[in-house]
Amino acid sequence: MSTSPFAHAFELSLPDWAIELLAEEQPARTTLEQRMALTLTAARRNFERNSGGPFAAAVFEEQSGRLVSLGVNRVVPHGCSSAHAEVMALSLAQRRLQTFDLGGDGLPAHQLVVNWRPCAMCFGAIPWSGVRSLVIAGGGPAIEELTGFDEGPIHPDWLNELERRGIHVTQGVLESEAWSVFEDFARSGRPVYNARQG
Amino acid sequence: MSTSPFAHAFELSLPDWAIELLAEEQPARTTLEQRMALTLTAARRNFERNSGGPFAAAVFEEQSGRLVSLGVNRVVPHGCSSAHAEVMALSLAQRRLQTFDLGGDGLPAHQLVVNWRPCAMCFGAIPWSGVRSLVIAGGGPAIEELTGFDEGPIHPDWLNELERRGIHVTQGVLESEAWSVFEDFARSGRPVYNARQG
Repeated sequence: MSTSPFAHAFELSLPDWAIELLAEEQPARTTLEQRMALTLTAARRNFERNSGGPFAAAVFEEQSGRLVSLGVNRVVPHGCSSAHAEVMALSLAQRRLQTFDLGGDGLPAHQLVVNWRPCAMCFGAIPWSGVRSLVIAGGGPAIEELTGFDEGPIHPDWLNELERRGIHVTQGVLESEAWSVFEDFARSGRPVYNARQG
Repeated sequence: MSTSPFAHAFELSLPDWAIELLAEEQPARTTLEQRMALTLTAARRNFERNSGGPFAAAVFEEQSGRLVSLGVNRVVPHGCSSAHAEVMALSLAQRRLQTFDLGGDGLPAHQLVVNWRPCAMCFGAIPWSGVRSLVIAGGGPAIEELTGFDEGPIHPDWLNELERRGIHVTQGVLESEAWSVFEDFARSGRPVYNARQG
């Protein structure tokens, strides 16, 4: 037996309520509003159930609207600063499809739907994932003022950088509903987990 | 039993050779060159043993030089586009210390050492991790020409963005040795795994 003090592996998982939600029948979601509504439900439930921050993401087959994966923020429960909703959703989609490239040969086009503009890390994760499009409810620094969450040093030309790589961006889907989730989070007094609190 | 087709969790782990390496006595590495030498050994071994791309990262206690974690690129073996060396090293350090914030109260300052400039995603992951400094061997687009690896849309002012967040950056540590690893990788003919190959 090794007595090495080093960690050799880490696992990131969905909370129980999300597993239960995914066990329900998942209809094809043909409109972007239907797809965003799922992420808003998950984002709200995630902070209400104390299973993470108010962020959720989902991967869909772009044309059919079939749900491939759901991710929620798991930073605090897992003690892992990379466990953002987008990383969870993309990694779980790749796990299900057994490939690191959701844009690979023979696969349908995949779409990432997120309840707010991705942070600097998740922005950088999107081109590696192979998704062909990104759908967000809103973006901009207002969320930092309302919730205290830091978006990080996001690329100043982030939208065009994605479009240039063939990833189409749609903004403003259910924006006011998404904003309501953040307002309710802010009112809840639950913790914000930006790093370097020491 | 659930018959849900969805993935609920994913695990990322080190290859066996890295676990064996970590089981050896790990001396305090007081110089940056000693710290970088470890990542170069790991980066080289990772592609030679077919356990991932030619990238490695390690977290050290900044002052003592004590090794906290080692990470290597695991994208292809795990089918996970986020399994970059930096994400592995940071997540394994956080797992070991049981916190998402390596800069948290009561912890010594932590340093991330990487064998090349982080890609756009890993650049964004660094501020969330709580490390206080970043050490790299080199940077710039030459690696893309030599190896074919895409660095992604990295922030044009990435270095100052990190410094502004209190993360000190040191460049040029064992740069020619790091470059040799990439040259040997390029000569090996092993696959480059940029996404969207379909």
